[in-house]
Amino acid sequence: MKSDLDQIMEKNDLDAILVTGPAQHNPAMSYFTGIIHMTNGDLIKKRGSDPVLFYNPMERDEAAKSGFKTKNLADYRFDELMKKTNGNILEATILRYERMISDLDLTSARVGIFGRMDVGSAYGVFSGLREKIPNLELVGQLGDSILLQAMATKDTEEVERIRAMGAVTVKVVWKVVDYLSSLKSKNGALVNENSDPIRIRDIKRKINLWLTESGVENPEGTIFAIGRDAGVPHSSGNPDDLLYLGKTIIFDIFPAEAGGGYFYDFTRTWCLGYAPDSVMALYEDVLSVYQQILSELKMNSYCFKYQDRTCELFEMKGHPTIKSNPQTQEGYVHSLGHGVGLHIHEYPRFSSYVKEDRLHPGSIVTVEPGLYYPEKDMGVRLEDTVWVRPDGVMEILADYPLDLVIPVS
Amino acid sequence: MKSDLDQIMEKNDLDAILVTGPAQHNPAMSYFTGIIHMTNGDLIKKRGSDPVLFYNPMERDEAAKSGFKTKNLADYRFDELMKKTNGNILEATILRYERMISDLDLTSARVGIFGRMDVGSAYGVFSGLREKIPNLELVGQLGDSILLQAMATKDTEEVERIRAMGAVTVKVVWKVVDYLSSLKSKNGALVNENSDPIRIRDIKRKINLWLTESGVENPEGTIFAIGRDAGVPHSSGNPDDLLYLGKTIIFDIFPAEAGGGYFYDFTRTWCLGYAPDSVMALYEDVLSVYQQILSELKMNSYCFKYQDRTCELFEMKGHPTIKSNPQTQEGYVHSLGHGVGLHIHEYPRFSSYVKEDRLHPGSIVTVEPGLYYPEKDMGVRLEDTVWVRPDGVMEILADYPLDLVIPVS
Repeated sequence: MKSDLDQIMEKNDLDAILVTGPAQHNPAMSYFTGIIHMTNGDLIKKRGSDPVLFYNPMERDEAAKSGFKTKNLADYRFDELMKKTNGNILEATILRYERMISDLDLTSARVGIFGRMDVGSAYGVFSGLREKIPNLELVGQLGDSILLQAMATKDTEEVERIRAMGAVTVKVVWKVVDYLSSLKSKNGALVNENSDPIRIRDIKRKINLWLTESGVENPEGTIFAIGRDAGVPHSSGNPDDLLYLGKTIIFDIFPAEAGGGYFYDFTRTWCLGYAPDSVMALYEDVLSVYQQILSELKMNSYCFKYQDRTCELFEMKGHPTIKSNPQTQEGYVHSLGHGVGLHIHEYPRFSSYVKEDRLHPGSIVTVEPGLYYPEKDMGVRLEDTVWVRPDGVMEILADYPLDLVIPVS
Repeated sequence: MKSDLDQIMEKNDLDAILVTGPAQHNPAMSYFTGIIHMTNGDLIKKRGSDPVLFYNPMERDEAAKSGFKTKNLADYRFDELMKKTNGNILEATILRYERMISDLDLTSARVGIFGRMDVGSAYGVFSGLREKIPNLELVGQLGDSILLQAMATKDTEEVERIRAMGAVTVKVVWKVVDYLSSLKSKNGALVNENSDPIRIRDIKRKINLWLTESGVENPEGTIFAIGRDAGVPHSSGNPDDLLYLGKTIIFDIFPAEAGGGYFYDFTRTWCLGYAPDSVMALYEDVLSVYQQILSELKMNSYCFKYQDRTCELFEMKGHPTIKSNPQTQEGYVHSLGHGVGLHIHEYPRFSSYVKEDRLHPGSIVTVEPGLYYPEKDMGVRLEDTVWVRPDGVMEILADYPLDLVIPVS
């Protein structure tokens, strides 16, 4: 939780953290500032102190909304620095950071860096800054960052924001299923009142509209994939595809608060009209593993054990898994789930390679076992987002039936 | 243009470029791949060769849509590298890049890096890779990157995509003005049929809905700011504000193709019902400078000259500008415009500090002079997006009237 940050910084021997970039679609920044309209800024938090927010003067009112102590970037006279460097923006930017770092007495410090900037700029600016200030140690982490460590458990406000996103998500899923059920079929696929075929493109457009009406956004798109595409876990679905009866549809929807806030993550697998025996068997295998794993989740347990357990359960049912063959593209081919928050994928991780992540009180994770057989034109995944409540109960944050078959006229 | 890239790489002495990250909301990647559903990948383009796209096996079908030669990241055996580094994701990632770089014979090369990754990861991975391969020179640019140089002029397909975004933009602006005109006023502010006040929140929700209905997205939000907020150029507007008559409303809308594609950028300033004399005078000053500058734009001219010229014209009318006082927050406080493309702000730049950017054939730029007086509760900005046609004509890509006053009942 945010309140653990000083302690996490101490454990990681960090004197300060520096966060850069906009306050929208930049989790590291909006974790602190909230979602405000700041197109670019810097936030520096020294261990044991509140953050200081450096803002562009045109955005002073938005910066003030953060509630933090603020500093006007214009006071660092970028115009002078540009003259001094003959108009070299990279050099001038490095010099401005040098002044900001000096201002906060961080020239002999170990500072973690976070936020959003393009890859080349980040490398250019911070490797340049490192050369400029010999006793400044910059820490660039991948994976196990201290912000992700703090974000790995959610406080009450965060849980409620994610729960609210869950409510929006299932409301939209109900609209999708109501719409699909209202359609007729012709030649084995859904059609509208004029007997024109409905395509995945049409469904996705409606999903986006319903999400927008609810005031949320869909930054990563939606997976609505049928048949062979449902057998390829991250195929988003072919926009031209028809909605054939009796084919698996994987519908994975993961909207977020407008401006790049908290996500929800949810998947159902549907068959329109009826499910062939082979599909029903695959669905039953996923459903039983989903229910078994949910019943086994325990607070404070290690996540990798549930990934191993999922592989074990699927293998007992005769499916290949990435445990027995890390390169398999059939059977169970991904990990059991992931934390959800300001990122769609965050801590804890359920990878077999990550031994330290646990289901802490306040963790919010997806549970999403799936089986994929692209050559047999089918795939099944079931997913809910689960809050590890401080009392140890695993609470699904938005209820929705797990049914496979959607009846159509 | 994209076709200039090899030449630009040669001029910048780059043997290759490496682009990393997703193919959505990552201009460096989608410039090459188009907007596909690839959550993470790497693209390496050697000078004089077509790009090679490294994909996650779960996304092989999406990667194939790029049309490029592809390589499966699973062949680099991240699982082995994780074991080798005792589960250190940063180290394992660096080793994987080392293998990829070796595979393409780039261990003694100068490579520009681009794309999206968080700041700390980018610094960690690429400073680590640099240490690992002594003869690899990584070039991280800020500002004057070679991709931005290529993107600074648009080919026919890009112009048509931006024009299409312009058509969507003005269609939505018409809907907003039609809606505002349909409302009644009460106590000097707009109300709905039940006499409940309309707030900026309501207008923004409608804008988002109309944009979504058109199949586009609004990743950076919309500025719809009234009164004092209109006097603060980048205030996005207070959601609770009422729509008072006779106050300046700055409406700056900049939607993009779904998935993070090409933007359009457009601003009008409106007064509901009537405009007080002081507002009308401010509007006339901006309008005349807008028209004067548009008439003076010439292909191949330097952009900074138009910024200086805009300051000169506003100063002749008695307004403070950032030319006379770089820290002013009144009068003309920003630059005249910017290139528009896969980024809302790209080349050419109209800053006084940037002497090299020009209006080349194929440039697409905004022209957006404005005047701001927050203490007087007013601001005015007018903006269109202009294509520098190869025949030298400056073509506004979406027509819309410049009128200030919106009549209301």
